Parts: sequence; structure tokens; C-alpha cells
Amino acid sequence: MSVTAVEGFEAAGLASGIKDGGVSDLSLVATMNRAPVPAAGVFTTNLACAAPVQVTRRHLRTRPAASAIVLNSGNANAATGDPGRAAAARMCELTAKELGCAADDVLVCSTGLIGVPLPMEPVERGIPPLAAALGETVEAGHAAADAILTTDTVRKETVVVAELASGPALTVGGMAKGAAMLAPAMATMLAVLVTDAACEPGALHRALEHGVHDTFNSLLVDGCTSTNDTVLLLANGAAQNEPISSEGHGFHALVEAVTEACDELAHAMAADAEGATKLARVVVQGARSSEEARRAARGVAGSQLVQCSLYGRDPYWGRVLSELGASGAWFDPERVDISYNGVTVCRQGVAALHDETALERTMEQREIEILCDLHEGMGQAQVRCTDLTHGYVDENMGTS
Amino acid sequence: MSVTAVEGFEAAGLASGIKDGGVSDLSLVATMNRAPVPAAGVFTTNLACAAPVQVTRRHLRTRPAASAIVLNSGNANAATGDPGRAAAARMCELTAKELGCAADDVLVCSTGLIGVPLPMEPVERGIPPLAAALGETVEAGHAAADAILTTDTVRKETVVVAELASGPALTVGGMAKGAAMLAPAMATMLAVLVTDAACEPGALHRALEHGVHDTFNSLLVDGCTSTNDTVLLLANGAAQNEPISSEGHGFHALVEAVTEACDELAHAMAADAEGATKLARVVVQGARSSEEARRAARGVAGSQLVQCSLYGRDPYWGRVLSELGASGAWFDPERVDISYNGVTVCRQGVAALHDETALERTMEQREIEILCDLHEGMGQAQVRCTDLTHGYVDENMGTS
Repeated sequence: MSVTAVEGFEAAGLASGIKDGGVSDLSLVATMNRAPVPAAGVFTTNLACAAPVQVTRRHLRTRPAASAIVLNSGNANAATGDPGRAAAARMCELTAKELGCAADDVLVCSTGLIGVPLPMEPVERGIPPLAAALGETVEAGHAAADAILTTDTVRKETVVVAELASGPALTVGGMAKGAAMLAPAMATMLAVLVTDAACEPGALHRALEHGVHDTFNSLLVDGCTSTNDTVLLLANGAAQNEPISSEGHGFHALVEAVTEACDELAHAMAADAEGATKLARVVVQGARSSEEARRAARGVAGSQLVQCSLYGRDPYWGRVLSELGASGAWFDPERVDISYNGVTVCRQGVAALHDETALERTMEQREIEILCDLHEGMGQAQVRCTDLTHGYVDENMGTS
Repeated sequence: MSVTAVEGFEAAGLASGIKDGGVSDLSLVATMNRAPVPAAGVFTTNLACAAPVQVTRRHLRTRPAASAIVLNSGNANAATGDPGRAAAARMCELTAKELGCAADDVLVCSTGLIGVPLPMEPVERGIPPLAAALGETVEAGHAAADAILTTDTVRKETVVVAELASGPALTVGGMAKGAAMLAPAMATMLAVLVTDAACEPGALHRALEHGVHDTFNSLLVDGCTSTNDTVLLLANGAAQNEPISSEGHGFHALVEAVTEACDELAHAMAADAEGATKLARVVVQGARSSEEARRAARGVAGSQLVQCSLYGRDPYWGRVLSELGASGAWFDPERVDISYNGVTVCRQGVAALHDETALERTMEQREIEILCDLHEGMGQAQVRCTDLTHGYVDENMGTS
């Protein structure tokens, strides 16, 4: 179940011909009555952001509301200049015309190769039947989720239900495509979330920012901040709860539900990382601040050497300590403890006696937790990563 | 020819038993009369720096002079705590005793595995014959250069002669071991430079800082700042030139010679990078400042995706543009031009028509220059990198 698990949202997906071979490549999510509802988005910080990012940002700046989101895979529409912006705007217009809403109330996302003009013929031809196919069934949700995939091997969907202290339960549904950084030649991490919560736009934006912080923004594979990364959240109010504000009671429940939905999708991305054989969680605790903990965890998780060690099942903690030391976080290297899945291999900055057999066995696991305690303060953070493998190199050495 | 090409310096190298199989692992460079001469050093910025880095820094802080440098490969003596510091200090003491100089006037470097105690028995046994073997022959220089190698496949040496406007020519000799980041499980880039210039200690330090900036500090393979990186420079004054100060005439000539020596050694490191099939130079020009140009060039050169593309001979400039955009440098993405070995593939931020055959042919070259013009200002920088290959993964997935 995915976006259509939320009352009042419809979805569709089809093969328009952007991709060869009849592969699904055009996706649509819309409110059932086509009326605009509060919408929020977070985007890549890349200066060279793609045309659809520019257009969607502008639409949300004009008014934080949307009736629909149209998405394509097979082409990132990035580094495409004025024609690229015109193409992204045209995708909104075509969708709006079919749905009977304003073009400004349609948001747009693309994913695929950078620097190749978006072929508009399949898009022009595809959007009318796409809009006609909108439905609220499970299958319609699957079709929309399938159409945004690139090198993903499995569809990525989630549904989370949140209980409010009083009033109705809230539902958050979502779909995503694999972490940008994992996919060969692909430029995008995309996620679409919808909820039946009634929510003020400002609170919705804050909830989304909270939600992505420890989930999508803590998933690190090769450190690349892509041209197209986008996460969107629409809230149609179908649950008829008392509208949520940033100060109100319901806000915390909404943040938790959005965070859980993002976390499930981020985990699904990491688990589906092509070429990866390990899924690691780098946890740094005892930093002077959570900001420093995050920096240190990113340093370790993003290290090619640490990632290669994971692939080789080698608990080489010296590289972990070295990356902590190079991260910019401040700590005393001679107070650091490091463990792999609970087996402490470094205590106070030097090698610790440990059970070799237990360590060897735990390095065979698919999921590895590297815990680093800096013993300096209360700052804590975690970042997910995968291993660096022959498969990763295979996937990324060519675009064809 | 290497350090012994410079008058007044001697060198030696031997197999002490730190490494198995009779492989050379202990190296010594000393002034011929054992008198301390002006010395300068630049070191890793890693908080978790190795014991020999701590000891050498302290010795140079006490007095910027040295009589000798003792080095070992096969063990980094990093993450080894108090016993590690004692071991590094002991290496200086043992050397000083043999040479008849002060322990404070001996500098020490180590390279190898992190987190493993340095075996002192071979060191204790090895230093007396090492000191006895000191000589000024070419072979003695080679022996010292061989003893610091780890996974390097070739010895790395250089000699540069600088003509002064007036007075004698100056000679700079050097030896180095492969870039830390390239070597499996190794923690160090080491380089030792010696010159016959007469030079004030402050000017020597400034000359070394200049020298490493665009050379060793612009060589990026996997972005790892190791625990042991050290570059040392000794100046014995044997050329009997008028002592060089930071303001004097000779300073520029010294900087140029030191830079050239560093550049040759850095190039040799990159060329010998195990697993690498390509040697790339990322040049960014037209940035608002040289600082921003450097940041942008590092972003591109350090990108796993760009490195994988190079391995696949794929001129996928979309990744280059994306890394520029994510680097933190400011520019208008729609003014950027990108070329590979002179073939322009992106003009004003979008795909440029180009000769496909010429591009394909140039991607077959071992050396690739990726030139990015941001068209914003006068800032310029270049960073070297290699490709990310199956061989890199093989080399780095295990320590054994």
C-alpha cells in the first residue's frame, strides 16, 4: 500500500516512451477532487538543480498548496537550460489541463540522465491517458510507485498510521525511488508523501523538515548531492482532525508519522542499493553537540576506505578512528571507544582485547552497527551507509 | 637520485624485521657531520594523529632544527596511546645515541597499519646497523627510499636544481611513499626533502608550506586525511649561498625548487596508485576566488561517481556539473563550460555539440584533464585524482 492508502488521493503510472521497451516512466498523484491542499517540499541544495526542482520550488513559493504531482523517470531534465524549464512547466500545464486545476498547483519531479533534453513527445502523448487512469486502488498506487523507479530492483512504498491523543487517526502514505547516489548515472532521490491530516502549511513544512533530517538526510552512500533530490508532502485534511499547527498537540504525532514513513523509505533505498552487500549504521555518541556527532558519523559513513573494509568483512577500526579524527568534530582520540555490532575493538583509542570468533561472526551479518563513543558530551547522531563493492563500480562506470 | 644527491646528507635503509620476509622497513637520513640544521615540517590535520607525528611536532616546536630523520614502514604506530609515544621517542633516542646527537634533534615517521603496537625488538636491533650503513652514494639513497615503501610498486625519488640570480645553484632532493589514500590499510603519505640551501628556519617553513599546497595537498584519491601524513624538509647550507630569508631574493627560487620536487613526488604517487587506470587533473577556472576554485575542483576530483565514470571511459559531464554545484563554490550553472582533454562537452550549462570520435579517443588516454570554466571571476585551482576501479576495491577490502 502506498499513496492511495490515504483517503482522498488517487494515483496512476504508465509507460509513455521516455524509456525504451515499454517500461513505466510517467507517474501522477492527485487529490481526488482536484482541489489544492497544503503542500511542502524539501529539495537538493545543489546549485545546479534540475529544471523540475526550479519549477516546483517556484510553485510552492507562490502558494504552499498543490492539487497534483507529476513525475517522470528516464530523464533528469537537469542541465537543460531554458528549454528544460519550459519542458517542466509544460508537464504542469498538460497535467493541469487534464485535471481542471491551475498549472501553479501542479508540482513536477524528474529522474534519470543529466544533460539530455527531455523528449516531450512521449510526455505530451502520455499525460492525458495518465490522468484518465487515476484511481484509488492499491494497484493504482503500485503503478505510480513503479513509474518513478530507475535502477531500483523493488518498488518502495510505505503506510504509517498515527494515533492522536484525541480525534481520528492520521495516515501517511509514501512512495520513493532509490537513493540517487546508488543508481548508475541517475541523478535523483525522489519521494512523495501524502497524508489525510488537516494541517497548516507552515506546520506541514516543519514536519517534513523534521522527517527528512534523520532519515533521507542521514543516508550516505557516496556523498553526492544530486541535481534532482526532492521530497514532497501533501495534506488533504480528509481525516477531519482539528487542523495541526506547529504549537498544537497533533504536531508531534504528525512529525513522528512523517519521520517513520521517511525512515521506512530510506531504509528500503539503502537495502536496495545495487552493488551493496552490507548495510551499515554508523552511530556516534558522546560528541560535544549533535551537530558534531553528525559530522563525525558522516565522515565515517562516507569513507571509501571504511566502506571497502565493510565489503571485505574487515573490522579495521583504525580507519574509523582516522575518519573521526579528520571529520572536524572535536574530541580526544585517546578516550574513544569503537564497537562493531556490540563487540568492542577499540577502547580509549587503542586496540581492545575482544572475542575474535564473535567479531568474525558478526562481520558476516548483512547489517553492521559501528558505534563510536567520543566521551566528550551528549551529542548523538546516526548515518546509514552501504559498502563499496565491485558491483558499485560496475554500476557506475558507464551510463549505458 | 634522491636525498644523497644533495651534498652533506647521508642515507641508509635495511630490513629490521618489522615486516615479514626480509623486506626493507627501516630508513634513515642524516646530516653528514650530525650537526642539527634548519628543519621544517607539515603534518596531517587529523585529530587522531599518530605517535611519531606528535613526537616530531614537539621536537620541531622545541627548536626548528634536526640532525636526522628515522622512518619505518610496516606499522603506523597510530592509535597506540602512551606506549606508542614512548616507542616513537625511543626511536629518536636510539638514533641519537648512534649518531652522537641530541634525541630532540631526531625526527621520526611511521607508516603502516593503524592500531597495532609497534614491535620494538626489530627497531632496537635494527637502528645500530642502520646508522652504521649511512652513506652518501646513490645506492644509499635508494636504500632509504625503498625502506619507506608499502604497497608502492616503484621507488619515488626526485632531484631538482635551482639557479639563483647570483651565487651557487641550490639542490633539493627528496623521497616519498605512495599516497596514503591509495594504499590498502596504510595510513600515510610520507615525504622527506633535503636541500643544500642556507636558509632561515622561518623561510624554510614558508617555502615548504608553499611547496605542498598545490602538490601533495592537491592530490585527492579518496578524500582520507590520514593519521600519519608528514612532509619534512632539512636545509644544511652546504651550498654556502647567502642565507635565504622570506623577503630575500633567493626565497622565490627555493619555493620553486621545493614545489617542483613536491610536484614530481606527488605525480609519482598518483601514477603508482594501485588499482588506478587513469590519472586525472581537474582544473577549475573562472571561480570567484582561488579558494572557491579549489573547493570546486576537490568536489569533482573526490567524487566517486566521477571517478567511476573515468574508469568506464565515460565523459559523463552531468556528474561533473552536479559535483561543482554541490561543492559550496558559488556560480551560475548556466554559464559553465566543461571539456575533457580540450573537447568541450558542455557549454553554458547544457550539452555542447562535439566530435564524438575525438571524445571517444581522448577518453582512452591514461591522463585526462577535466577543465571547468565557471565564468565568474579569476579564481583558478587544480586537483589531481585517479579513477575508482575494481582494483581499488580489491586493494582496500582487507588488511591481510
